[in-house]
Parts: sequence; C-alpha cells; structure tokens
Amino acid sequence: MGKRKGKAPRVRISIGSATALGPGKVGLLEAIAAHGSISAAAGEMGMSYRRAWMLVDTMNSCFAGDLVHTNTGGKGGGWAEVTALGLDVIARYHVMEAKAAASIVEETEAFAALLRD
Amino acid sequence: MGKRKGKAPRVRISIGSATALGPGKVGLLEAIAAHGSISAAAGEMGMSYRRAWMLVDTMNSCFAGDLVHTNTGGKGGGWAEVTALGLDVIARYHVMEAKAAASIVEETEAFAALLRD
Repeated sequence: MGKRKGKAPRVRISIGSATALGPGKVGLLEAIAAHGSISAAAGEMGMSYRRAWMLVDTMNSCFAGDLVHTNTGGKGGGWAEVTALGLDVIARYHVMEAKAAASIVEETEAFAALLRD
Repeated sequence: MGKRKGKAPRVRISIGSATALGPGKVGLLEAIAAHGSISAAAGEMGMSYRRAWMLVDTMNSCFAGDLVHTNTGGKGGGWAEVTALGLDVIARYHVMEAKAAASIVEETEAFAALLRD
C-alpha cells in the first residue's frame, strides 16, 4: 500500500443531479455573497458572466425559493444578493462536506498512498 | 423546513484536486472495464474519444501505477484493460462514496426538502 502521505486528499460532495448542488455552485454563491455582484463573482471563479448567470438561474429554479436575488438595471449597475435560503444552503453544504470527509479519513489517507508523489 | 421527500439526493465525492478522482473518471474506468475499449467506453459515457484518452492519461500519470493499459495498434484495432490497481481504485471509491453518503443521510434528507418538487 506504500507509505501514507501527510495530507489526505480533499473530499468534495455533490448532492443530487447536475441541477442541485456541488462545489462549483457553492463557491459561486459564496463569491456572490462576498462581492454583491454576479460579474465580480464570475471573475473570481474564473467563469464567464453568462455561465454564472445560468448557474444562478438553475439554482433559483431548483430550490423551493430563490438563493440569489438580482437587480440588473438602473444607475450604478446591477447588484446581486444571496438570500437567507441561499446562506442556509451554503452552511448546510459545508456541514455535509465536513461530516462526509470526517467519516472517511482513514480511507482517504490510504487512498492518497496510491497517488504518485 | 417543509416535508421530506422520499428520495434523498445522491452523494458523489471527488477526492483531491481535478487531477485525482471523481464520479466521471470512475465511471469511465468502469466503462473501460466493461467494454475493453476506450472508444466504446467514451461512447457509453457520452464523451469524445479524445477526452476519454486525456482522462485515462491523467489518471495513469497521477497514480503510482497505471490504472489502464492500452494497445492502440495492430490488426483488429486497439484494446484497453483496467489494471489490478485500477480495479482497486474503483472498489475503494465506491466504499468511500457509500460510507460518506451514509454519514450524512439525515442531512441530505433535510436538504432534499429545500428542493422544489
């Protein structure tokens, strides 16, 4: 099995189908919360504005309520805001990710030993 | 929190960075094992032959040994075979996925209640 590496690989989870939630969408939500803007969030995530918009639109239609509220027009440009439901989803995601990772610490350490140095 | 849905969302895990392992690469390995051919596996996965080759190449260089052996030439076309290490990686992945999912059953059920019907 080889010797163990010091750092276990990171575990990321995706919940449900492509339409639900994974690391990419959660990262985008967090960037929108930080910047108050979809274009700034898209820039931070290294994705196009169009793709960020599509992901937001998908999330808003997949969940029981909007995760992001937006205002595209007017003077001073648009803004975007993560809703209370969106913040709840972010928090729940990280709890699930941490708990899932903790449940397989030994397995991921053993798995890391199979990777090339 | 709303009523629970009957089906909890599926949990998929990715181990490490984009170079390591996730549902896409594991699915590709399994399809190669089933078909003995990268092109047939790519077809089943709905990805291009070129992309399947690149993923195989990445996996072979990231792990301590090859996960897939290939023979591209000769009469009758090429073949591909998942190695013992590759089969081990597939099995470990499913153990980790199942254990991680089991550790957050309650959380994923509660999360499912946040999704639109």
